[in-house]
Amino acid sequence: MNTHKLFCTALTLIALYSPLAFSQTLNTNITEAEVKAAQDAWGKALIQISSDYDKSGLEKATATAKTVLDSAYGYNLGPVLFKPTLSGGEQTFRTDYQGALSYFVGGNKQYTQDKGFALKSWTDYSYKNAAVHINGDTAITMGKVTLTDKSGKVTTVDKTWGFKKTDDGKIRIVLHHSSLPYSEK
Amino acid sequence: MNTHKLFCTALTLIALYSPLAFSQTLNTNITEAEVKAAQDAWGKALIQISSDYDKSGLEKATATAKTVLDSAYGYNLGPVLFKPTLSGGEQTFRTDYQGALSYFVGGNKQYTQDKGFALKSWTDYSYKNAAVHINGDTAITMGKVTLTDKSGKVTTVDKTWGFKKTDDGKIRIVLHHSSLPYSEK
Amino acid sequence: MNTHKLFCTALTLIALYSPLAFSQTLNTNITEAEVKAAQDAWGKALIQISSDYDKSGLEKATATAKTVLDSAYGYNLGPVLFKPTLSGGEQTFRTDYQGALSYFVGGNKQYTQDKGFALKSWTDYSYKNAAVHINGDTAITMGKVTLTDKSGKVTTVDKTWGFKKTDDGKIRIVLHHSSLPYSEK
Amino acid sequence: MNTHKLFCTALTLIALYSPLAFSQTLNTNITEAEVKAAQDAWGKALIQISSDYDKSGLEKATATAKTVLDSAYGYNLGPVLFKPTLSGGEQTFRTDYQGALSYFVGGNKQYTQDKGFALKSWTDYSYKNAAVHINGDTAITMGKVTLTDKSGKVTTVDKTWGFKKTDDGKIRIVLHHSSLPYSEK
Repeated sequence: MNTHKLFCTALTLIALYSPLAFSQTLNTNITEAEVKAAQDAWGKALIQISSDYDKSGLEKATATAKTVLDSAYGYNLGPVLFKPTLSGGEQTFRTDYQGALSYFVGGNKQYTQDKGFALKSWTDYSYKNAAVHINGDTAITMGKVTLTDKSGKVTTVDKTWGFKKTDDGKIRIVLHHSSLPYSEK
Repeated sequence: MNTHKLFCTALTLIALYSPLAFSQTLNTNITEAEVKAAQDAWGKALIQISSDYDKSGLEKATATAKTVLDSAYGYNLGPVLFKPTLSGGEQTFRTDYQGALSYFVGGNKQYTQDKGFALKSWTDYSYKNAAVHINGDTAITMGKVTLTDKSGKVTTVDKTWGFKKTDDGKIRIVLHHSSLPYSEK
Repeated sequence: MNTHKLFCTALTLIALYSPLAFSQTLNTNITEAEVKAAQDAWGKALIQISSDYDKSGLEKATATAKTVLDSAYGYNLGPVLFKPTLSGGEQTFRTDYQGALSYFVGGNKQYTQDKGFALKSWTDYSYKNAAVHINGDTAITMGKVTLTDKSGKVTTVDKTWGFKKTDDGKIRIVLHHSSLPYSEK
Repeated sequence: MNTHKLFCTALTLIALYSPLAFSQTLNTNITEAEVKAAQDAWGKALIQISSDYDKSGLEKATATAKTVLDSAYGYNLGPVLFKPTLSGGEQTFRTDYQGALSYFVGGNKQYTQDKGFALKSWTDYSYKNAAVHINGDTAITMGKVTLTDKSGKVTTVDKTWGFKKTDDGKIRIVLHHSSLPYSEK
């Protein structure tokens, strides 16, 4: 028996006869790295929708927005606590999927004020957290988010996010409160 | 032996010899009722500070504000994610106790823009949650909060709160994002 | 327009134009009632496997055991902390599905000591919790479990269970430590 | 102004004027390292009580046991799910402090079977986890624990622990199920 075979046989024996040999850990907690990755992904997704709109039109942008909502938001879990930046009156909160989609790409007759926030030719994104709380499989962040469009115009908003790590290990936005900065008139 | 004595002896025997007789439950989760009570308490506290200010002056109002921050906010746990309604620029976020106190009652030279939000003669408060999430010992809420001052002027804000139930069973605000409603110019 | 139509139209209008009208709550916490239901279900399942074995044989019992493991245990989430009553030596812990199945119905050449715990003609089951902890979407219980077989023989074990409520709202056993009572020799 | 002063002044300015400069994270989750440290500490404490008993007698050992229970177990939080190895009958579970203390050092007239498990001259301790679950501020472990006394006699037990990280950042045992290994007669 050569060395390779011997090694493989040993591994097989360990696997078969030593269930105690290795400890296994199941950790369902969200990590700070996962929170930052989700924050990065949000900006990247927004820029992608903008880019798709500018290059390929509304249909493509809407498809991308749906993909983003399907994968990055928690509408599959229940109502999402979503207060978008440019949303007011009776339609301030977008706790359901259709309200969120309308905010990002417009085109929904129930939300006549929506112009499609993600269609504004965003090209750059950054954020600075003031503080982050991590609690079990959830995290909340608060800070400044800065968006730049293709003309170079900069928009800064105050943003709170809540993230939840689901059983499949994915991170979803379950809370999103965005507001224009306060300034004295 | 009369009936009463018999009963008491039986109870004593159960207590002494039957540690299995009663199940004991330790439940650290926050309940929806606790969340609502905390939301009620926030408005009541704000009105109390206003009332103390109008009746007894700044010193009394400041003392009340400190009591509120000490008992209802989570600054003892770490940085609080607090974005008050009328707070902007470099001083937007009040993650520490002093910043929060300054926002409510002013008088802090580091926060020159603060005029004391709790000193505005608030007399009435109500809220309407758009959605609530309860996750372990934490909860997040989003909705409209309406404040009325003694002149009858109504101020409505979009408000997100995060609450945490601590080991002693108390509920503390660990997240508070408040913003003026968006309206098209 | 008759009353019925008026009422339906009003409801439709509320649904269309008043997204603020109703608060929605998403609560992911496990409740004590869910814990008790899961404890009840465990005993019922064990008796079902026994009954299937006695009436229809090993194949049917094995199919039932698989259904139980698939729905009531958390092997889909990761390793389960399972120390069955009559399991010792190198094969004490059954952190994987095959080890658990073998314990309940036997027939696995890797677990030669297993005789099929669920095949012992169990007909009655009861439990008494000494204490229960509820923490977020998980709960742990400790207490006495009593099993009776068709001959009337009673077996009592000390049992700790850990339950987890998954995103789909189901309760799964993620911890199960069962041991024969200690008695001085 | 020398370099040192310049540096300090710069730091002061940053601290005074840039509340946004640093992100702060509050993470209440338990880590695997904390779980392992708690498991190490348990064995070390047991050996310490034994050593104190052998060197200084029961009073000293009892004082040490109280210190251990006060700091390492969660009796301050509520009932602890504790099933010690050598505990049976009506007194199987030690959900309260007195029951736990009695198990470790004896001397309690209500627990006549207790001989003081920690007084058995333990000198060595090791453990091997079969699996570990980490969920928020709690963790559960299951595995083999091996204890050796000064005569060289080895005792192995199957042990499940549940740990909870409290608001002060400490780790406490809230679940402890220990049982002698099963062996066919």
